[in-house]
Amino acid sequence: MSHAVLAGGVGAARYLTGALEAFDPASVTGIVNVADDVVLHGLHISPDLDTCTYTLAGAIDPERGWGLVEETWQAMAELGRYGGENWFSLGDRDLGTHLFRTARMHAGATLTEVTAEVTTAWDLECRLLPVTDDRVETRVELTDGREIGFQEYFVGLQHSVEVASVRFAGADQASLSSDVAATIRTADALVIAPSNPIVSIGPLLAVPGLLELVEARRDRTVAVSPIIGGAALKGPADRMLRELGEESSVVGVARRYRDLAATLVIDDVDRDLAPAVEDAGMRAVVIPTIMKDPGVAAALARACHNAAVGS
Amino acid sequence: MSHAVLAGGVGAARYLTGALEAFDPASVTGIVNVADDVVLHGLHISPDLDTCTYTLAGAIDPERGWGLVEETWQAMAELGRYGGENWFSLGDRDLGTHLFRTARMHAGATLTEVTAEVTTAWDLECRLLPVTDDRVETRVELTDGREIGFQEYFVGLQHSVEVASVRFAGADQASLSSDVAATIRTADALVIAPSNPIVSIGPLLAVPGLLELVEARRDRTVAVSPIIGGAALKGPADRMLRELGEESSVVGVARRYRDLAATLVIDDVDRDLAPAVEDAGMRAVVIPTIMKDPGVAAALARACHNAAVGS
Repeated sequence: MSHAVLAGGVGAARYLTGALEAFDPASVTGIVNVADDVVLHGLHISPDLDTCTYTLAGAIDPERGWGLVEETWQAMAELGRYGGENWFSLGDRDLGTHLFRTARMHAGATLTEVTAEVTTAWDLECRLLPVTDDRVETRVELTDGREIGFQEYFVGLQHSVEVASVRFAGADQASLSSDVAATIRTADALVIAPSNPIVSIGPLLAVPGLLELVEARRDRTVAVSPIIGGAALKGPADRMLRELGEESSVVGVARRYRDLAATLVIDDVDRDLAPAVEDAGMRAVVIPTIMKDPGVAAALARACHNAAVGS
Repeated sequence: MSHAVLAGGVGAARYLTGALEAFDPASVTGIVNVADDVVLHGLHISPDLDTCTYTLAGAIDPERGWGLVEETWQAMAELGRYGGENWFSLGDRDLGTHLFRTARMHAGATLTEVTAEVTTAWDLECRLLPVTDDRVETRVELTDGREIGFQEYFVGLQHSVEVASVRFAGADQASLSSDVAATIRTADALVIAPSNPIVSIGPLLAVPGLLELVEARRDRTVAVSPIIGGAALKGPADRMLRELGEESSVVGVARRYRDLAATLVIDDVDRDLAPAVEDAGMRAVVIPTIMKDPGVAAALARACHNAAVGS
């Protein structure tokens, strides 16, 4: 049995927590977005990989939803003394991860290798695979004409600006991870996590070869809608969909994913839209998708798996 | 009035503290060794510059003698979790300095510019000038044939190994800082701080042009012996001198510095060696040099200045 998940940050991390509870952890693989990665102060920072790792390790800060518990902020305070750029908060504990990753990558390790070392150190039994070892960078064009990096949009501006378009710089030259390709080819179930379709799942699909591999497994692929009752639980997915001319609803999500996935899992609150999802070309499965505790997440993972394998 | 100091780490930092007490701080310039600098985990670390800055800011940890007070070690603990190289301890507060320096240098700032920004942020009224903006790297050849970096020798192996030779990689291609050259040409007094002659003062003099500039100011140059009663107060200067075939005494120091400086300041405990220092070609000034408090350091700085200006 194998269960593979196309993953962004927080929503995907919660889904993966459920999958680890529902299945043999060794059968679970997260295929993780790296287009939010950023080099800051010389350090290689991989926010989605770290959010997944820390969450699965039970070490994520429950209040903030990102970064580590029992965090301190001494480095940022000193950086502030110098007038350094500290809008992207790096906790002292978290810095240990970035120092390690940067040192290993300077020594020639791939991001895939470093990620395996990091997850092993946290005793994770599942695999987390960066979609590529190459640099892909989400660039956000604003309606005022500026083009900025994803973290500047997401963290610096708190995504409170209108987006005109999004592109994934470097994606066309990136090589799909061979581990990722093999995982997708052989997974019993392939799940598109409830992550931002544009800036979390989008850059995964922009890596040459991935889209075709997923389309070839359409019958085994299940997407979980990140839109619930027309809104995103967290983050700007709903606004971004609208700003880019799509519909912020499970139907809009179905139109985006119908060539990739046979099934869309939607929340109970969207039950009435199930027929419209089916009209848009996807089978609708209606169950609770707000993963407020690991039990809900595990039930969601089981439902996704069953939908994929047709049982 | 201007008072310039060729400086390494701890001994020089204490001397500079005294100079700031003795003179108008704006008239004091530290010309600081950068050959101990190291890039670790992608971060540019300048131990001697930071030791001088933190000491003059009154923020050095008094127990350790390096790094910042009220320091925490969360980043290093996490780095240790991953099996990362954490033998070179970077405190969380200290990391703020390295993050800032690295970000500014990636943005194209010179080490001289960053150092000015850092010292200004700590409200230092004196100047600290890196001897060069280029990379110079102290390499230590051990008697077992290995060649290692300075920090690996000094911190990693706690300088408990025998040294065969020392070289300063990159020094011959380095450009002397124009600010440093101007400072040396015009200083009323030029002091060689009580720093390790081989690995702190040595790499300063290895930057092309500096040796000649100092020799041209020999009459205005005063060295403070880092060897007291045959031993170094701190660090391996005494052992290194012996291992490299020199004498670990004020006379050995005089032989090393006689072409550069007219005067050698030696501690009271070495009073009997004053004639031997003079025979070696330097005028000897005998006063307390163990800077156990700022008053001793200030008196030492005054004595040096007076020896230089001949009053």
